[in-house]
Amino acid sequence: MDAYERITRNVSEVVTEDEVRALAEAPDGKRAYVGYEPSGVLHIGHMLTATKLIELQEAGLDVTVLLADVHAYLNDKGSFDEIRETAERMKEQFLAYGLDEEKTEFVLGSEFQFDREYVLDLHALELNTTLSRAERAMAEIKSGESAKVSQAVYPLMQALDIVYLDVDLAIGGMEQRKVHMLARDVLPAIEEESPTCLHTPLIADLSTGVGKMSSSTGTTISMEDSTEDIEEKVNAAFCPPTAHPDPDDDGNDRENPVLQIFEYHVFPRFQQVVVERPEEYGGDLTYDDYESLEADLESGELHPMDAKTALVSYLDELIAPGREKIQA
Amino acid sequence: MDAYERITRNVSEVVTEDEVRALAEAPDGKRAYVGYEPSGVLHIGHMLTATKLIELQEAGLDVTVLLADVHAYLNDKGSFDEIRETAERMKEQFLAYGLDEEKTEFVLGSEFQFDREYVLDLHALELNTTLSRAERAMAEIKSGESAKVSQAVYPLMQALDIVYLDVDLAIGGMEQRKVHMLARDVLPAIEEESPTCLHTPLIADLSTGVGKMSSSTGTTISMEDSTEDIEEKVNAAFCPPTAHPDPDDDGNDRENPVLQIFEYHVFPRFQQVVVERPEEYGGDLTYDDYESLEADLESGELHPMDAKTALVSYLDELIAPGREKIQA
Repeated sequence: MDAYERITRNVSEVVTEDEVRALAEAPDGKRAYVGYEPSGVLHIGHMLTATKLIELQEAGLDVTVLLADVHAYLNDKGSFDEIRETAERMKEQFLAYGLDEEKTEFVLGSEFQFDREYVLDLHALELNTTLSRAERAMAEIKSGESAKVSQAVYPLMQALDIVYLDVDLAIGGMEQRKVHMLARDVLPAIEEESPTCLHTPLIADLSTGVGKMSSSTGTTISMEDSTEDIEEKVNAAFCPPTAHPDPDDDGNDRENPVLQIFEYHVFPRFQQVVVERPEEYGGDLTYDDYESLEADLESGELHPMDAKTALVSYLDELIAPGREKIQA
Repeated sequence: MDAYERITRNVSEVVTEDEVRALAEAPDGKRAYVGYEPSGVLHIGHMLTATKLIELQEAGLDVTVLLADVHAYLNDKGSFDEIRETAERMKEQFLAYGLDEEKTEFVLGSEFQFDREYVLDLHALELNTTLSRAERAMAEIKSGESAKVSQAVYPLMQALDIVYLDVDLAIGGMEQRKVHMLARDVLPAIEEESPTCLHTPLIADLSTGVGKMSSSTGTTISMEDSTEDIEEKVNAAFCPPTAHPDPDDDGNDRENPVLQIFEYHVFPRFQQVVVERPEEYGGDLTYDDYESLEADLESGELHPMDAKTALVSYLDELIAPGREKIQA
């Protein structure tokens, strides 16, 4: 796998291919960034982006993780001291999950978002961005409630974070794509470059396969989960014997979250996946890549229940180090 | 005239009457504020608010004039150093116009608008204000172009300025009323009091009486004007022999800007206004209040041309000290 393939592996969107190819030609010392609002426990959404960050580090890039304490404060997640403690716990879990400590910098938003130049640049972006342009960036992230002025300002802060963190590559889930497109549009207005971006896929809802898995609704998997929790959740998961399930009775599209977790979480971290089976059921199955596992599920060679059992064991191995940090 | 009458004299709106009555009971040491973007030369719009500030000082209040250098910078009015120089010239003109130096504090926006607590409170207001609420505050100030995010943020900064300048009374032209109403609505969300406000009237367009006088379109009077400039502008002004002119041929409402300048600029500053006339035309006319002058214009006793000649002389007396500062 060459650097470009490693950098773009499993991503849903590359913006732009030419820019990422240029970056892949000399990745050493280049810097990728992702931002999160600090929360006590890493969930599978964080882990998916973290997996991409680990791959980027393997390709030679450095990584900045922005822990957006100012936004957490504004969203009533506690005092700045409390949020900083939460951020510290989150940092430990990221490292336990496999980020390379030597190549990872953790930065709090409050370290630069109150600087005079940052505030002035933010006002300049506000002046150069129409409300209707900002609203197009918001829609996917918040909807169904009356939009607030902050929802027009926060995407501009994210754009500015990219500048102030001096990164070469912005990483985010697909829910961040509109914000990153806004950043590409507006940063030239303050004489800054449009950021290069990679967007990671979103996992389908674990129990139904309809819509996206969310940490706020439905079932999610987090670093707090015990082996038994993971077992229970994965065993109850939607996993038809195909990567392309039919829509449900209401016509909603469905995906296979068990296969997705294999593809986006397990295979990027393990050279080989072994599905253990008793000899009487055909013995162990060994996969060197995700595609072979998917093909066996489609053909009936691999039973969904056996796939789930294997998934529990690999997921548990990924989660165990972070879980220990939480319990420590 | 009691304190309440002096404080509310000539204002178009009092918000609320009860609040201003309470303030008028002990006005000494209370603080009123007005904000302007620094511009090199005071025009008649600034002077109208300044006249109100002088009356407030006579009633015992202190005054803070906010010179919004950050906004001037964002609006490409020069470097911060250049804008500070402009602000200094503006300050001199305000004092020359008659503001009491002992009771006037001039503050630059940059002195507090970059403070961490201010920035954090601004973000909190953004989070607590819907875009549609902010848009209602914007409409009157900017229209006809595509609204920018800044137009939703600036009114919130104005609200916060009132808090950080620790003022008891916000003063502005009627074009500021929606911003002040927004401030009254949103400040309680960050545990701050709704500000008490006074709004001064807007003078009609000098040459037509249709619409409002504007420093950017049409004729205005400024501190740069020579006696001859004032003479030329006032002589060309729309001044029918009535305070209530008929609409123009297109049905547009008209007002009498010459009378308005007597009412809002001249009478608040002079105990008595004398219209000089040769003996053969009836000799001098002397007015102790605006109403008598208006009545004489309506009755035909005072000819518009004589009213204009008197206006030139009083306006020139008001403007001369500031003009000297500009030329110095």
